[in-house]
Amino acid sequence: MSLADTRFETRRRKLASALAAKRIDDVLITHITHVRYLSGFSGSNGALLVSKDRTAKIATDGRYTTQIGEEVPDIPATITRKVAEELLTQVVEGHRVGFEADYLSVSQLEVLKKACPEDVTLVPVSGAVEDIRLTKDGLELHRLEEAAALATEALEQLVDAGELAAGRSERDIAADLEYRMRQLGAERPSFDTIVASGPNSAKPHHGASERIVQEGELVTIDFGMHRLGFNSDMTRTFAIGEPNDFLREIYEVTLESQQAGVRASVAGAKLVDVDAACRTVIEEAGYGEYFVHSTGHGVGLDVHEAPYASTTGKGELREAMTLTIEPGIYVPGKGGVRIEDTLIITSGAPKVITQYPKELTVL
Amino acid sequence: MSLADTRFETRRRKLASALAAKRIDDVLITHITHVRYLSGFSGSNGALLVSKDRTAKIATDGRYTTQIGEEVPDIPATITRKVAEELLTQVVEGHRVGFEADYLSVSQLEVLKKACPEDVTLVPVSGAVEDIRLTKDGLELHRLEEAAALATEALEQLVDAGELAAGRSERDIAADLEYRMRQLGAERPSFDTIVASGPNSAKPHHGASERIVQEGELVTIDFGMHRLGFNSDMTRTFAIGEPNDFLREIYEVTLESQQAGVRASVAGAKLVDVDAACRTVIEEAGYGEYFVHSTGHGVGLDVHEAPYASTTGKGELREAMTLTIEPGIYVPGKGGVRIEDTLIITSGAPKVITQYPKELTVL
Repeated sequence: MSLADTRFETRRRKLASALAAKRIDDVLITHITHVRYLSGFSGSNGALLVSKDRTAKIATDGRYTTQIGEEVPDIPATITRKVAEELLTQVVEGHRVGFEADYLSVSQLEVLKKACPEDVTLVPVSGAVEDIRLTKDGLELHRLEEAAALATEALEQLVDAGELAAGRSERDIAADLEYRMRQLGAERPSFDTIVASGPNSAKPHHGASERIVQEGELVTIDFGMHRLGFNSDMTRTFAIGEPNDFLREIYEVTLESQQAGVRASVAGAKLVDVDAACRTVIEEAGYGEYFVHSTGHGVGLDVHEAPYASTTGKGELREAMTLTIEPGIYVPGKGGVRIEDTLIITSGAPKVITQYPKELTVL
Repeated sequence: MSLADTRFETRRRKLASALAAKRIDDVLITHITHVRYLSGFSGSNGALLVSKDRTAKIATDGRYTTQIGEEVPDIPATITRKVAEELLTQVVEGHRVGFEADYLSVSQLEVLKKACPEDVTLVPVSGAVEDIRLTKDGLELHRLEEAAALATEALEQLVDAGELAAGRSERDIAADLEYRMRQLGAERPSFDTIVASGPNSAKPHHGASERIVQEGELVTIDFGMHRLGFNSDMTRTFAIGEPNDFLREIYEVTLESQQAGVRASVAGAKLVDVDAACRTVIEEAGYGEYFVHSTGHGVGLDVHEAPYASTTGKGELREAMTLTIEPGIYVPGKGGVRIEDTLIITSGAPKVITQYPKELTVL
């Protein structure tokens, strides 16, 4: 058995233990991201049954017969069109079987109920795999660091090539950045790339439009790369030509806030306190009303996942969690700034995996 | 009221009529693609309540206050964090309210049940919006034709620029094609671009790997562009240098099959018969076992949507439906071919909106 198999087996063992504590005998994994996380299978259709005795069964359709044998040599596979129903028929009599209530649709549950043997009980399960995903293992951290480093390299290339410049459209700049990420190994962007220039920089959820970037404007670029199942997430705001004093001021306040958030991101820190560390700096500078979103989120198989640093964030940071720190100031009609790093939480200072200068770059 | 508003209102009226026939007073739309389809709102968070008296209510969160006013001037909007729950509290006493059972998760339904006024009954609804989406209106057809034409243009550019060539990796070719689509207006690819060369061309669901394209090989490119909410879908197989007789033969059989499928795609034709038109040609040539998937699907807001042309396809084609015709032959170890067009069904011959030569192009 290879190292990879051991890792997936460890995850499945953690899941089975967590569920046994809730008197659940088996759990039927149907969320495809979780099937991959717990087995290594990267196909687009599959289901996995994890049992309290540490065994597992997997099912996929005929398109993936060869692939599942290669990717998941350690779990018996069934080839079928009805992956979840088929696994349900293989459950031991009298068992309580958990299903993923946060992902399974109401209609899908009805289908499962019909396929369920009479003496088997279906039980909703929520957050069980997410709890395990909260802290990352060695390979996950490695993949996340790789994706972040490659995405950062793409941004460096974009800037070095002069592609971030006045006279170009937001869309063309986004296209160039995505192309460079693709060439560096991205399977796709982690989310629609944001290139927000001038007045658009004051909209936190702007995309990339046909607007032409002008001299004297700020341009916020928020982007990520999806590679080998994992994501990256990073934001930098650039000045195209010399910005006015107001834009420089909100940049400096945002930077100070972001650095305070990074410093606060240590194992044991409460997530509300990490948020407060960022928010206080912006509030004290008088821009509190313009920081209209939360401070950060975890990054992993999903580009937004637990933990969440916000005014209502629950729990505290632990080693091997990831967290973005991304405060922003958005002043309608004047412009906006956001600066975002992704961190890995350690026993000491956090490891910043999006290494790109944060002092204002004037292009 | 603008033309656009009338169009959305027409769709909502059709929905309300369909539901009234099932004794449903209001339907709570939570699938964001359907919220957009029925209201024009393009934000990432929102819910819509459509009532049998032809009124509607919409909700989104504070990020979209301005946007929803601009995009949906004709429906009263509530700004809230809990969009679906909030609309549910606005329902008239005693009403039966439909929810989208195919999209709402089991956990989300539990949240709705808690928010639901005591005298309101929640009723699962399945396929109601999809039934309306089956036939496209004028603007939808226009958007679909635009996306298909722009994606086709991107492929032309790729070939003309010599970017589809021996010595290049599948991934680089995919990156070039996606870049060209982006520059032509794509917000993102409709799905991960497939560039399948040599032995990979025998895998219908290959992605785009680091494999280097060689002389004498076939390369299958399956790609699409997402733009303004709509998708395109098209496949061509190219020969890089002179192919051997076997590859030429499976190409010619696939082409003949594809053309038969296009000819069969007329209003009134049964979907099983469209599938059979393609399949028979391949079977009679002796390659039936290598055509391992169905013939085609609709294209619209989703890149795969009803109708489905397969051996088990239900119903028949009607005017203003869309359909792909995409037979393939995949011979492990030897190579494969797929040729795919997207059609609009009319009263006469179908309109092929992916206009690119289908005779074998040898590069």
